[in-house]
Amino acid sequence: MSKQQEEDREQVLCCSPVMRQPLSEDQSVELARVFKAIGEPVRLRLLSLIASHAGGEACVCDLTDAFELSGPTISHHLKVLREAGVITGDRRGTWIYYRVRTEMLTVLSELLVPAEHGVVPA
Amino acid sequence: MSKQQEEDREQVLCCSPVMRQPLSEDQSVELARVFKAIGEPVRLRLLSLIASHAGGEACVCDLTDAFELSGPTISHHLKVLREAGVITGDRRGTWIYYRVRTEMLTVLSELLVPAEHGVVPA
Repeated sequence: MSKQQEEDREQVLCCSPVMRQPLSEDQSVELARVFKAIGEPVRLRLLSLIASHAGGEACVCDLTDAFELSGPTISHHLKVLREAGVITGDRRGTWIYYRVRTEMLTVLSELLVPAEHGVVPA
Repeated sequence: MSKQQEEDREQVLCCSPVMRQPLSEDQSVELARVFKAIGEPVRLRLLSLIASHAGGEACVCDLTDAFELSGPTISHHLKVLREAGVITGDRRGTWIYYRVRTEMLTVLSELLVPAEHGVVPA
């Protein structure tokens, strides 16, 4: 995704209180794309492994042992996560080091905070 | 989904700090299923419409005007959201009234809060 596309998406996503007022169609398309990207078990585990790795970053070399999957398959899932804007990659020498994009995770997290009137008794 | 299945799932999902320690395979399968359910534009808008509706609940009769979709199509998406555990339905007279399951949204929201070491400078 280009820098411009990323900025456009963040403009759409920024500050949308999904549980407090209805999402527009545009917002729902953009946001659903991000949730769909993390709505796959391998990708969600990759995201969690990267986020919790020492120093907050990990290369493919740190990630492959957790899966019985080929390197190219893992690279494909990492690409989907990058394109969705939830991780970034930074090439240093042989490896690309991945980090979580905390600003995107924060947007997603805040969007899902339920509105108070919606409380269902436990 | 049966009550028992719901309880089993909540046991798996409860308190998993996805960004602080790696998710297990079981957790990632359960969680990915929920994110996949909301990773679809119509379903995400439905969730947002229900959550933000007056009183925190809405029937299909309140939801159809926002979409150029048939009643059965909307009902199908509502069923997927119910099965994923993000909404509940309560039949009263002719209509089923849907509410957001705030406990599930809270779990999802808290899971996505980034770990501090993962901060990428803006």
